[in-house]
Amino acid sequence: MPPFDVPEGDPFGPHNLPYGVFSIPGSQERTEPTVGVRLGDHVLDAGAAAHALGSPYASLLARPTLNPLLAAGRTAWSDVRRALTAWVTVPSHREVLEPLFHPLSSVTLHLPFEVADYVDFYASENHARNVGRIFRPDAADSLTPNWKHLPIGYHGRSGTVVVSGTDVVRPSGQRKAPADAAPVFGPSVRLDIEAEVGFVVGTPSALGSPVGLGDFREHVFGLCLLNDWSARDIQAWEYVPLGPFLGKSFTTSVSAWITPLDALDEARVAPPERTHELLPYLDDTNDDQDGPGGYDLRISVAVNGHVVSEPPFSTMYWTAAQQLAHMTVNGASLRTGDLYGSGTVSGPTERERGSLLELTWNGRDPLELPDGKRTFLEDGDVVTLSAWAPGPDGVRVGLGEVTGRVVGREA
Amino acid sequence: MPPFDVPEGDPFGPHNLPYGVFSIPGSQERTEPTVGVRLGDHVLDAGAAAHALGSPYASLLARPTLNPLLAAGRTAWSDVRRALTAWVTVPSHREVLEPLFHPLSSVTLHLPFEVADYVDFYASENHARNVGRIFRPDAADSLTPNWKHLPIGYHGRSGTVVVSGTDVVRPSGQRKAPADAAPVFGPSVRLDIEAEVGFVVGTPSALGSPVGLGDFREHVFGLCLLNDWSARDIQAWEYVPLGPFLGKSFTTSVSAWITPLDALDEARVAPPERTHELLPYLDDTNDDQDGPGGYDLRISVAVNGHVVSEPPFSTMYWTAAQQLAHMTVNGASLRTGDLYGSGTVSGPTERERGSLLELTWNGRDPLELPDGKRTFLEDGDVVTLSAWAPGPDGVRVGLGEVTGRVVGREA
Repeated sequence: MPPFDVPEGDPFGPHNLPYGVFSIPGSQERTEPTVGVRLGDHVLDAGAAAHALGSPYASLLARPTLNPLLAAGRTAWSDVRRALTAWVTVPSHREVLEPLFHPLSSVTLHLPFEVADYVDFYASENHARNVGRIFRPDAADSLTPNWKHLPIGYHGRSGTVVVSGTDVVRPSGQRKAPADAAPVFGPSVRLDIEAEVGFVVGTPSALGSPVGLGDFREHVFGLCLLNDWSARDIQAWEYVPLGPFLGKSFTTSVSAWITPLDALDEARVAPPERTHELLPYLDDTNDDQDGPGGYDLRISVAVNGHVVSEPPFSTMYWTAAQQLAHMTVNGASLRTGDLYGSGTVSGPTERERGSLLELTWNGRDPLELPDGKRTFLEDGDVVTLSAWAPGPDGVRVGLGEVTGRVVGREA
Repeated sequence: MPPFDVPEGDPFGPHNLPYGVFSIPGSQERTEPTVGVRLGDHVLDAGAAAHALGSPYASLLARPTLNPLLAAGRTAWSDVRRALTAWVTVPSHREVLEPLFHPLSSVTLHLPFEVADYVDFYASENHARNVGRIFRPDAADSLTPNWKHLPIGYHGRSGTVVVSGTDVVRPSGQRKAPADAAPVFGPSVRLDIEAEVGFVVGTPSALGSPVGLGDFREHVFGLCLLNDWSARDIQAWEYVPLGPFLGKSFTTSVSAWITPLDALDEARVAPPERTHELLPYLDDTNDDQDGPGGYDLRISVAVNGHVVSEPPFSTMYWTAAQQLAHMTVNGASLRTGDLYGSGTVSGPTERERGSLLELTWNGRDPLELPDGKRTFLEDGDVVTLSAWAPGPDGVRVGLGEVTGRVVGREA
């Protein structure tokens, strides 16, 4: 009986249980957003379930965002997950909970948490080398001198992080080809994607107190897919000397579902071998860590339903734990709801690249799609990132997809 | 009788009335932060005053942050300011209000608003040219090619914006001199300031809808002094290619007092003559604007009480209205509480530079202070920015100071 009897092998079975925020438009009981937990193709109203079962976690779950749960800390995250697992698997709860499940197709999914600061990294060596080869073909090294010594990152705009399904308005801005005398203004003609994984901070930290590599799991609650939409022409003209700004700040899309790290224990893998000696605060080759720092997430990038790339997250040089340690080593504090992106995920082969910039080699080699050639995105194009990870007993752990349709400004 | 009879010519007289958030530690009635308005050397408990006088604005003022007032919009800002002016100037209110004033020396001042996104610009031509001459001495032009076409900006960390008076913990991080084989880790040895003005957004805007130059006053509530503390050694190693990150993200200090733009009408001045034709969305040479876009703010930078520089804000090439138009031209939305910094304010002469980088020419020419020479900041140094602007009838409008003491990490 649905919703409990999820088909065997379903990537959103009881081993997964990602968190989101949903409402049911036009319904009697659930017009305001509240925390939901996904099971198969249903959403459990988690706060209502907690109330119905007399659970003490109702105060964390009967809320319009995940922030209270995020702020509750690692022990609470484990306890709540254990409780939810029991609720959806123990037969005696079925009668009480059945009316609190809603078909995914009937709900509206919202941005699942209030984003505090948003930081974006640049942690794929394949991506960084591709970008270097495209934009600095004459450089002796395709990586900048700092790349192997620190995970390069920069702050982005948290106010324009949107949930999967939100239309992406094509940004306008200045662009200037090197041969042009002056910049021109207009809609971006090189609109791109960046396939990334986003990490969501739960437990805050104090100003002046760095978070060490070994404390990653104390602070980071979970992860999601993230599309860092990028206007390459705007970015190219603006970014020297202070980095990307309007070329990125128009929209960043995240999944509606946050997968707790506790659901991804089987997906942990060692990152690529370190080719350079690391300073102690970044050195993950010793035994201080709580397990390997990489995650084996198999990402898929589809344009209008056609898969164009399958970037392997396991190839990322810098891990999320290293990024967290670096981001705070100067004493910067963390807040509940901080989000940081991994940077574009690109594997070593052509069909594993996480951006159109790389997939088309800056437009030189158009992609052949069933509906025509593409260099960069056209209005109406729909881009969808999806992913799965190895789970317990060979079952996959599905990540929530992140999708968005490009629209012109007047649409 | 204090608090009403502020000395004639006081820069915090009834023509000013900046907003802050205060509490009184250990008091009976005011242990929780609430909105205050400064008059001379007193703070009026604005929410309590509104209640006492039966004002409808109590709901905007009896709050722990300025955000509800910021969100209320320009008409409300004018109405509340008109009411406050009447409260502190009409003699019949004196008896009711007198107990609601507290000496500044008795209160704790808090971060006056919840910062949404923080963006920092780079709008002083003198500063940008000085930086160019210091770091790119062989370049044909000390400005990057884009500088005169757009106000360069980047996102900073809003979670580490602190109120004036908060200690600044010296950041640690990686640095690498060009001749070094590998980076080293340790406390920054080139800790610097950047004297800036911060602009505070009140009225939000919708994703996909740019804010035009003429709508600046509809969205921006007021301004404050801002010190964008910078670790030059960390920044130099990390910032290529994605811009400043840990060299800036450890602390940004703002005044405890937000001066409403309505108090600065007499300070408005035309910005420097535009040397390059501007794209229409940035062109402030036509008549669409609501008055000139510059502000004549006279800033003073003191190290340990010794004034080292007096940067003139009127020399800024890009105005706050242009920065707002640029920041949103790609469709990025605004939120209540967005903060953007002008960039370091540097005038054309040596004693008008807004950073130690420029004042000491990257350490080559140490400053002679009464307590010794300085290239960059030492532990224990206190840096204070203060400023005033021309007000009505020749009276000055004082801006709240922003001060901070540098402490070592273990202090």
